Amino acid sequence: MAQEEKTADLSGTIRFVLEIDKLKSVLRKVRPVGEDRYENTAEHSWQIALFALSLAQTLNPPIDVSRTVAMLLVHDIGEIDAGDKFVFAQGGWEEQKAAELRAVERITGLAPDETAGFLLGLWKEFDAGKTQEARFAKAIDRCMPVLLNLCNEGGSWLENGVSYERVIGRVGPEVESGCPELWNYLSRELKDARRKGYFAAPAS
Amino acid sequence: MAQEEKTADLSGTIRFVLEIDKLKSVLRKVRPVGEDRYENTAEHSWQIALFALSLAQTLNPPIDVSRTVAMLLVHDIGEIDAGDKFVFAQGGWEEQKAAELRAVERITGLAPDETAGFLLGLWKEFDAGKTQEARFAKAIDRCMPVLLNLCNEGGSWLENGVSYERVIGRVGPEVESGCPELWNYLSRELKDARRKGYFAAPAS
Repeated sequence: MAQEEKTADLSGTIRFVLEIDKLKSVLRKVRPVGEDRYENTAEHSWQIALFALSLAQTLNPPIDVSRTVAMLLVHDIGEIDAGDKFVFAQGGWEEQKAAELRAVERITGLAPDETAGFLLGLWKEFDAGKTQEARFAKAIDRCMPVLLNLCNEGGSWLENGVSYERVIGRVGPEVESGCPELWNYLSRELKDARRKGYFAAPAS
Repeated sequence: MAQEEKTADLSGTIRFVLEIDKLKSVLRKVRPVGEDRYENTAEHSWQIALFALSLAQTLNPPIDVSRTVAMLLVHDIGEIDAGDKFVFAQGGWEEQKAAELRAVERITGLAPDETAGFLLGLWKEFDAGKTQEARFAKAIDRCMPVLLNLCNEGGSWLENGVSYERVIGRVGPEVESGCPELWNYLSRELKDARRKGYFAAPAS
């Protein structure tokens, strides 16, 4: 490749990496352990990427772990335009996904074509949730805010009127499908948390 | 492996992943683009991991990119105990590195042995900076705050009295050694920034 082309590619990658800086300002509904502020999507993405990498060392899931990690790094960048949607929100999910896809196309489009195609492919694979890698990634992504809420004695569940049943219904299938060992652990912790009063009462 | 052992391993990994949550509260000296607050080390780690992954798609460095990404995810967790040290601080680097190593041993030690050994190995490889993977990772790590300061019209350089010469001297060798194409780009941008007054005057 000529030097000129390489420089052009580099400029594109840097435009992309500066654009994704905005993910540091997208706030989620969960707080870091013991903190008053909400966590942002950038730090969340880091934590789950390292969680997946660590968990894979002992569970040895039959997957390409590095692709799972890559998916987790990129899976939420659409929130830069579309915002974070609370996982327990009712309805509007198709519109949210469409908005995120448009955003991911715009943002990855700042990078050279090769990079854009690669990153968009990772995002689509995660979103489709069909490969084992994507399912493992989704299990980790769903599990992390549960672990934070458990440490925060209910956290965003109590703040947002979320019942035990809604958590089980929303989180359970994806965690169990992607990482059954994790669901085995988590479902016990959730039952314990119910006894401790970490959830809102179920809607009557 | 028996179910009991798997559960014990999982608890260890989860203790680890909850401990590293504290990295979200370690503040650096650089601000996200256009933001008043300082960035924290967790979101920084995410950004550089995705930067390395993206840049590798077009530069095709002769490295195992996924190991570089993994190193970048773990390389700063020692700051949980040791704090972030401003890259332009003079002296005290040996003590800082020793404190970080103790911290990384403590924190990874919460995870099962296999995972702890893997993560500590990544940290040590990054720290030693001898492999191509570690050098590429260091180049990205050094480059990112420079890009943010350029966007913030001098940012932490002006706030902390850092001259053009100090930036070149501190950042140049590591970026050039790990990713010459990136240094080619960055050194031009830095010259431009000098003309714009983004640096403090050199110490006389």
